[in-house]
Amino acid sequence: MNLEIISIGDELLIGQTVNTNATWLAKHLTSLGVEVKWITTVGDDADDIKSALATALQRSDVVITTGGIGPTHDDITKNVAADFFESELIFKAEILEQLKRRFEKRGRKMSVTNEDQAWIPEKAQLIDNPIGTAAGLIFEKDGKKCFILPGVPSEMKMMSEKTLFPMFKGQGQTIVQKTIRTTGLPESTAFEKLGDIKRVEQFAKVAFLPKTSGVDIRLTVKGTDETECRKKLEQGVNIVLASVGKYVYGYDDEELEEAVAKLLIKTHKTVAVAESCTGGLLANKLTNISGSSEYFERGVVTYSNQSKIEILGIPEEILEKHGAVSLETAEAMAEAARKISGADFGISTTGIAGPTGGTEEKPVGLVYIGVSTAKEIYSKRLLFFKERLENKDRFVQAALSLLKGELIKLIA
Amino acid sequence: MNLEIISIGDELLIGQTVNTNATWLAKHLTSLGVEVKWITTVGDDADDIKSALATALQRSDVVITTGGIGPTHDDITKNVAADFFESELIFKAEILEQLKRRFEKRGRKMSVTNEDQAWIPEKAQLIDNPIGTAAGLIFEKDGKKCFILPGVPSEMKMMSEKTLFPMFKGQGQTIVQKTIRTTGLPESTAFEKLGDIKRVEQFAKVAFLPKTSGVDIRLTVKGTDETECRKKLEQGVNIVLASVGKYVYGYDDEELEEAVAKLLIKTHKTVAVAESCTGGLLANKLTNISGSSEYFERGVVTYSNQSKIEILGIPEEILEKHGAVSLETAEAMAEAARKISGADFGISTTGIAGPTGGTEEKPVGLVYIGVSTAKEIYSKRLLFFKERLENKDRFVQAALSLLKGELIKLIA
Repeated sequence: MNLEIISIGDELLIGQTVNTNATWLAKHLTSLGVEVKWITTVGDDADDIKSALATALQRSDVVITTGGIGPTHDDITKNVAADFFESELIFKAEILEQLKRRFEKRGRKMSVTNEDQAWIPEKAQLIDNPIGTAAGLIFEKDGKKCFILPGVPSEMKMMSEKTLFPMFKGQGQTIVQKTIRTTGLPESTAFEKLGDIKRVEQFAKVAFLPKTSGVDIRLTVKGTDETECRKKLEQGVNIVLASVGKYVYGYDDEELEEAVAKLLIKTHKTVAVAESCTGGLLANKLTNISGSSEYFERGVVTYSNQSKIEILGIPEEILEKHGAVSLETAEAMAEAARKISGADFGISTTGIAGPTGGTEEKPVGLVYIGVSTAKEIYSKRLLFFKERLENKDRFVQAALSLLKGELIKLIA
Repeated sequence: MNLEIISIGDELLIGQTVNTNATWLAKHLTSLGVEVKWITTVGDDADDIKSALATALQRSDVVITTGGIGPTHDDITKNVAADFFESELIFKAEILEQLKRRFEKRGRKMSVTNEDQAWIPEKAQLIDNPIGTAAGLIFEKDGKKCFILPGVPSEMKMMSEKTLFPMFKGQGQTIVQKTIRTTGLPESTAFEKLGDIKRVEQFAKVAFLPKTSGVDIRLTVKGTDETECRKKLEQGVNIVLASVGKYVYGYDDEELEEAVAKLLIKTHKTVAVAESCTGGLLANKLTNISGSSEYFERGVVTYSNQSKIEILGIPEEILEKHGAVSLETAEAMAEAARKISGADFGISTTGIAGPTGGTEEKPVGLVYIGVSTAKEIYSKRLLFFKERLENKDRFVQAALSLLKGELIKLIA
């Protein structure tokens, strides 16, 4: 089954918005065995949208459009699609009532502009949008389906997962994939550690994806028999794990903080953090997981020396003698975080995120990560690059990685 | 002048790589006054590439392709383009020599695979690639130009800036744009507040872009005379500002935390935060700005009741009587953050990020944001949606917005 994505919106053609919607859809459709053959981007222009729809329905089995079904005047996709599929717009009172009720529930009055969302092409089947005002639409023409989805990523994703993807299950060929997520390993080293790539590729196609968080290694097997494909995938995965296993933190979409959260919950342990240069990002990642109150009790962002002294009780001598960015301070911070909270682990970060503020001795990109457990206190020194936000990300990734190491010791 | 971008590569169609090349090109071409009308993505497939070229050359004045001209077996764009434009490949010894010299200069031996890069379609003009092995190509057909560029972002960008963009200078029309960034206003309400959209559109085309962070309102003026265009843009912007000015936090790429940081630095004020449900994200955003130590002194993530009592000294009676998610707790947290840090402003968040943990009285998406200044303490109750990470984002955006309001009072 071939599929074409049509991304609609001037913001995509003027380079204001990166087309992450198409990438997200393509990734998920591929994993369902649906082959995405074309992605076409057009502006909010009736003629261009119609021309894109005509071309797509001619060369592809299924078409998905995103964008242009919001309530404002520049959203024209619904009307253009109704016109293209020769369908009248009819007013659906029940949709208006549903929208009104949703606004009321949140204590807000629905604005008049949203009434337009209750006008629906009569030939279209609706796709429920639980979090927005624009329903999705399904048109059929010459036995081919065209799905009209919103461009707001959260709405598009939820509607795809709830309604769209289940329709495609079992329709495509078998494509099985596994992404092995590693951290603490440069791409070239990951590649070299695998040795002759043919050892893996006799079973599965291999792709390396370097990211700030680490290197993802993706294995893909296509075929007709699922059992056969899965067996080959497993054989490929095992070879990769034998080479780089100790750098692996998770699979597919799993983030390092999810892996850490699972281990914390499994071992009934808690963690407290004391952050300087990461400025709250470590706590933020640890609390991004639903149910985090089970293992995360508190965090402090002690940016100034004064706050390190007042909240954490770091001795002034340490700060004066070794500086705020030092292994001594990192260790004292981690220890204090654990002690004042009563948590099982204390993790700290102190460094220079940049892009300014570095010295020859303590350059931008330098970080000390402190770890305190019931048994020991230690710290790790790492040196990354110049870019502030990437550095914060890398520092946090390294901190989570050390915490994961401690947790794995407990279950090994 | 209309232009079409053809992005070539399987990695784009399976969702492995986000198409940032097209966005980058579109942004720069737009600023040169070139109108990008279509972006087409195809895989590494000869028939599809030819079909995309044929369609593009029919409907657009200029075509740019990226991707598929590297040295390995899966790069087929050069051969397919030569075939499409009916051009023989000829061996250019001087290109091979040039490549060999470049490898030698870096102390490396050129691999045999790269010899293929010296085979060039005879009808093509070359675009020098100073940092890679694949030269760019320019074909002409029926008076229309087609530029073939590599997909490696650094190579594509350098070749565009050095060779491609200078060719377009003065060829396009004038396009001027301004994006007005708002927060705290749903898209439909923003639209209604502008009144009759024609008042603005007599000067500039208006587009609404809803995001988690708020609604962006983009104004665009196209024309021939730049002064005239800028004047119209300003007139349009002024009408928008008169209607929604108090929700505006910045322009174009500026983030709310950047706007807040600028105001804090300008007014020489400092802020301390006490977060519960946002789990460090507020501190993280405030410290994403280089130089944040000037205004950010400390933050605490008091996730548990115990930590609220111990670090912030929140009275147990408040937590027992009103609960952790209450305006009383929010205000006590904000006040404590300000008092214990000596900062000018204390900001707090307490709520239910979800997706679980809500009750009928206190549902998922509910947040209280506390503000403490030297003059007053107050809090704001807001109710958002079900999705944890989006809720955290929205809570933080609302908190930054309140802080911005306080700072604006100081300079008004």
